[in-house]
Amino acid sequence: MANTKVGIVGIGFIGSDHLHRLTKTIANVDVTAVCDIIPGKAQKELDRQGLKAKDYHDYHDLVDDPNVDVVVCTASNEAHHEIVMAALQAGKFTFCEKPLALDAKDCMEIIKEEEKYGHRMLQVGFMRHYAPEYVQMKQMIDNDVIGKPLMMDERHYNQTQPEEYDSSRSIIETAIHEIDLDHWLLGEDYKNIRVLPVKKTRAVQNDQIQDPMIVMMETTSGINIYLQVFVRCQYGYDIKCDVIGEKGVLELPTVPQVAVRKDAEYSTAILTDWKARFESAYDIEFRDFMNHVSVKKSPVGPSAWDGYIAAVTADAALKSLADNGKVEELDFPKTPDFYTEK
Amino acid sequence: MANTKVGIVGIGFIGSDHLHRLTKTIANVDVTAVCDIIPGKAQKELDRQGLKAKDYHDYHDLVDDPNVDVVVCTASNEAHHEIVMAALQAGKFTFCEKPLALDAKDCMEIIKEEEKYGHRMLQVGFMRHYAPEYVQMKQMIDNDVIGKPLMMDERHYNQTQPEEYDSSRSIIETAIHEIDLDHWLLGEDYKNIRVLPVKKTRAVQNDQIQDPMIVMMETTSGINIYLQVFVRCQYGYDIKCDVIGEKGVLELPTVPQVAVRKDAEYSTAILTDWKARFESAYDIEFRDFMNHVSVKKSPVGPSAWDGYIAAVTADAALKSLADNGKVEELDFPKTPDFYTEK
Amino acid sequence: MANTKVGIVGIGFIGSDHLHRLTKTIANVDVTAVCDIIPGKAQKELDRQGLKAKDYHDYHDLVDDPNVDVVVCTASNEAHHEIVMAALQAGKFTFCEKPLALDAKDCMEIIKEEEKYGHRMLQVGFMRHYAPEYVQMKQMIDNDVIGKPLMMDERHYNQTQPEEYDSSRSIIETAIHEIDLDHWLLGEDYKNIRVLPVKKTRAVQNDQIQDPMIVMMETTSGINIYLQVFVRCQYGYDIKCDVIGEKGVLELPTVPQVAVRKDAEYSTAILTDWKARFESAYDIEFRDFMNHVSVKKSPVGPSAWDGYIAAVTADAALKSLADNGKVEELDFPKTPDFYTEK
Amino acid sequence: MANTKVGIVGIGFIGSDHLHRLTKTIANVDVTAVCDIIPGKAQKELDRQGLKAKDYHDYHDLVDDPNVDVVVCTASNEAHHEIVMAALQAGKFTFCEKPLALDAKDCMEIIKEEEKYGHRMLQVGFMRHYAPEYVQMKQMIDNDVIGKPLMMDERHYNQTQPEEYDSSRSIIETAIHEIDLDHWLLGEDYKNIRVLPVKKTRAVQNDQIQDPMIVMMETTSGINIYLQVFVRCQYGYDIKCDVIGEKGVLELPTVPQVAVRKDAEYSTAILTDWKARFESAYDIEFRDFMNHVSVKKSPVGPSAWDGYIAAVTADAALKSLADNGKVEELDFPKTPDFYTEK
Ligand SMILES: [Mg+2]
Ligand SMILES: [Mg+2]
Ligand SMILES: [Mg+2]
Ligand SMILES: [Mg+2]
Repeated sequence: MANTKVGIVGIGFIGSDHLHRLTKTIANVDVTAVCDIIPGKAQKELDRQGLKAKDYHDYHDLVDDPNVDVVVCTASNEAHHEIVMAALQAGKFTFCEKPLALDAKDCMEIIKEEEKYGHRMLQVGFMRHYAPEYVQMKQMIDNDVIGKPLMMDERHYNQTQPEEYDSSRSIIETAIHEIDLDHWLLGEDYKNIRVLPVKKTRAVQNDQIQDPMIVMMETTSGINIYLQVFVRCQYGYDIKCDVIGEKGVLELPTVPQVAVRKDAEYSTAILTDWKARFESAYDIEFRDFMNHVSVKKSPVGPSAWDGYIAAVTADAALKSLADNGKVEELDFPKTPDFYTEK
Repeated sequence: MANTKVGIVGIGFIGSDHLHRLTKTIANVDVTAVCDIIPGKAQKELDRQGLKAKDYHDYHDLVDDPNVDVVVCTASNEAHHEIVMAALQAGKFTFCEKPLALDAKDCMEIIKEEEKYGHRMLQVGFMRHYAPEYVQMKQMIDNDVIGKPLMMDERHYNQTQPEEYDSSRSIIETAIHEIDLDHWLLGEDYKNIRVLPVKKTRAVQNDQIQDPMIVMMETTSGINIYLQVFVRCQYGYDIKCDVIGEKGVLELPTVPQVAVRKDAEYSTAILTDWKARFESAYDIEFRDFMNHVSVKKSPVGPSAWDGYIAAVTADAALKSLADNGKVEELDFPKTPDFYTEK
Repeated sequence: MANTKVGIVGIGFIGSDHLHRLTKTIANVDVTAVCDIIPGKAQKELDRQGLKAKDYHDYHDLVDDPNVDVVVCTASNEAHHEIVMAALQAGKFTFCEKPLALDAKDCMEIIKEEEKYGHRMLQVGFMRHYAPEYVQMKQMIDNDVIGKPLMMDERHYNQTQPEEYDSSRSIIETAIHEIDLDHWLLGEDYKNIRVLPVKKTRAVQNDQIQDPMIVMMETTSGINIYLQVFVRCQYGYDIKCDVIGEKGVLELPTVPQVAVRKDAEYSTAILTDWKARFESAYDIEFRDFMNHVSVKKSPVGPSAWDGYIAAVTADAALKSLADNGKVEELDFPKTPDFYTEK
Repeated sequence: MANTKVGIVGIGFIGSDHLHRLTKTIANVDVTAVCDIIPGKAQKELDRQGLKAKDYHDYHDLVDDPNVDVVVCTASNEAHHEIVMAALQAGKFTFCEKPLALDAKDCMEIIKEEEKYGHRMLQVGFMRHYAPEYVQMKQMIDNDVIGKPLMMDERHYNQTQPEEYDSSRSIIETAIHEIDLDHWLLGEDYKNIRVLPVKKTRAVQNDQIQDPMIVMMETTSGINIYLQVFVRCQYGYDIKCDVIGEKGVLELPTVPQVAVRKDAEYSTAILTDWKARFESAYDIEFRDFMNHVSVKKSPVGPSAWDGYIAAVTADAALKSLADNGKVEELDFPKTPDFYTEK
């Protein structure tokens, strides 16, 4: 069978990473075209990685190229909407890095476009759905290992962030992962969200920055989610997820590390780089996406609808943060059928 | 040196336990007198344990007995106030099981009485202050191991409780331990408290019972405490306490258990009985209390002021629970000097 | 760059697995030819996996095919020697599953053949060298984290094995992994080996089977290795590796699993299937091997010399077992230079 | 009931500790007499601890004093035999610190003396029998949690020892604990013992010292015990005990410590002082001993027979060490009935 031909729009940090992944660690794929808004940037990366591909100046040409079967959108966040729309209109299966778009309206427009095909054409890059530990956790919830879930306790800690990583980015780029994950893990929509300010670390670079913050969400059935976002915790990249059910508790494991007994301490390393934590999830994510679209099957990972839920919820979180922790109500329409069909 | 002579008022569940402790596992103590409101009950317990002591009908006689140096009050909660007042008025060092009294006014009356001596006469039975793991945690906080504390995450889970263990008892008898502990661990007063209802377990015996519940407290400097109280969690007696600071996180350990590899599982037992978890703390508590009062030194464990703080805070928690999670503000007077002198 | 063309000799259990791996999870590889001694077997597997490749009756034709750049030998153990010899003589880079050959003489013949090229042509399939946890452990040893190693404690436990898995297979197929790993981890040759019989589990199917057994090895500098081989331990597939040094101890972690608090137990699953434990190691192994040979570089994983060391050591272990635990001395020639060049 | 009157012979390091324990943490005991071979030493310690007791010059006077019900022997090892003999001849219940005596002959003489009473009069201070984690482990073995035991893996590591702590002390003072414990845990006698020299740490002060060393014992049913003794391991006091059975593995837990996430590490403290590890075991040990002898019941902790087994086995270990690891056979007489009666 011929290799699947992929075009990548946006060759920045994550785009270069996916370019490498698709050419070096994913089988049966050819990256036939690339494109970046900055002239010469894509070609430079191709050269650096020792690769050959068509380098387009305009993404419209890339999505229309008959030598491109699948579009991967890794452009800057504000360009996602137009690129994804163009790719869908060109009839191409599309992988879009998170976020799907900047607001609910743009997400909904993408959903309407996708709906015209009567089946899914798009996957959003929430890679944690593919992390084996979360997959195992979801299976255990679905298999009733702990009974009905009642509460969740989560932490999303980064070692540090620069001054420009302000409070809104703590929501839109950090908390967004749990916002996306939790409704998938629990199989429920959210009813409300609030963002509570807490005592700030003195590691914040200016006093406009709220760090840490507590994000609390309630699902439609009343499950309470408590998430600590702390992006200057100093000690490492640390992700925690506990699900408390009627009969027991599940706890997410971390990346295995050699344990050391030394200097009166028993210790294991904590990662400091987030990429190492979920690196294999990215590989599994693309392998799964490509396995589906290479044979013209709809992708089954995070959908445009998931992207929409995340965008709306994060937006409400920003409002709550600006309003000193006020509860923001959420009311989602019913998930369109073609997103829930198996 | 002669043994210290102890009189115990109230020979119920905990009174019998302390009677056994003081006669069998604490050195240099004689229990010379006991008293219970139910005639014959104290004598029956003396007989059961093979002990001899004066059995009083009226606690006033016990506290006035010159053959009693120290009074231990383990009567029912509503009787604590009057018994402690009588003991203090008789000039006796006094140990009172938690709660010190039923409301703030009664606690304050005791404080005024104690203040007349110009030094502490009383200790309240918050035994967790003596649990080695909490003591270690407090030392680590005080030694700046994790920098300034910013947040606390706690769980107080019981395997199960009967129908009569209603929501208010989840606060007054269960959460009270963390309410007391946390301001000691952090060295700060509370600014507010709220009790959030969450999705109920179907293990509640009637729908008036809120179980689990989330208790959130803020300290004067803004530290956010998140406590899950879940007294019908089914799986065991489980206590969790994490302190998150500017530089790191502390996690309370549990009672050590032999680990087992068997049947495709690696496991350790979780206790189901709360007494086993803090049993040694009770011994250490009484040993410390007796070491002080036996030589006429003031006790240094939890004070009447701690009892007052706990009473006022628990009362505010009850109001919040009744008012659907409304934030209840707290404003404590400055701690009287004689409680803070070393 | 064109894909690397691979021919696989032997399409049994592991051969089918590698066929799948090379066509589905390793990038930039084409499996152009296969071969199995049983007529029709290879074609059947190609059909089952939906693949196309030339199916040879005789492996000599496969190794001589100019459309085969690289030979993967997954035939039965007794055929390894002749197939590898043919592949080397045809000038093809070769990957041979463990064991390299059945005895020291055959291994040495392969080494002599490889030596003619003046550089490595061959890699042996000891995949644990690629398991991230062992790689981390080796780096820590090399970085002097625990000082000079003095002792190693290891376990290689399987849940169960059938009657035909006799004591010699416990050495040749089970202990062989640690025999290979330990001299790589420690960077030392072995001085002697012994196999101590211990009390047998009643799970052995006949009393000729020694299970568990203790394998003890001493390295040239005197490091003592203690390895328990127990292939009917009932509870799971469990691999342990501790290295004790002058300043501390290293402990190998296991595959991360969601932890569960339930039914008065805190537990994590223990794997029962060995493939799940080292699955990613196989992928990393082939990716590394292909990355080298695809650009005509010598492979850098386990070498023919490692295959020879393992064969000689395992043979001595069998003698010790037959001689009731007698110490068998080992004396290896100096490692040829072209195996140690970087 | 009157307090039990105790006389202590030998007020050195451990004697002073037990003096403190018996007067401060054990209930219902009076230390009425003390004695030390160095004039003035016992009185000085009484003064230091603020205690009053008769200070004898000659231990014969102490054991004969009618105001002494129970003798505690904490004299130097070589004096144990004569003091214990005198105490038994005086008809006193006796607690003797380990070792019971210096050789098998002296142990047997004590056993013969005790046998005259027809019931046990003596307990030997192997306090680990009272450590809750070992007690739990023994119960799990006895309750068939892991099926029949087949192997044991143990470590007895100290942070460091001075030059005078030579190889024989590694056996007589360190390994002696496991020698004593294991036959109690397993309920079996030993068949043989050997001491294997391994690569030495450069932390040894002279090259006569064998550190670490491996002690291997076989029980009568063939259970293989593997014990690493390493008394200059640098990193802490670390005790490990795994029991491997036909169906699973038991692992001894350690003292609970607050866990810390900090500086890219997840860590818990390892103790460096052996006393902290088994401190509560000493208290439980004396409480149990006193509970029995205070009512004229025979003690039920480690017996003179256990002292004899340990002495004979340690002696064989010394021979093996001197003979380069030669297997020393052991053949114990049947345990006298009055040691096995319940
Ligand atoms: Mg007493
Ligand atoms: Mg490719
Ligand atoms: Mg391919
Ligand atoms: Mg006393």
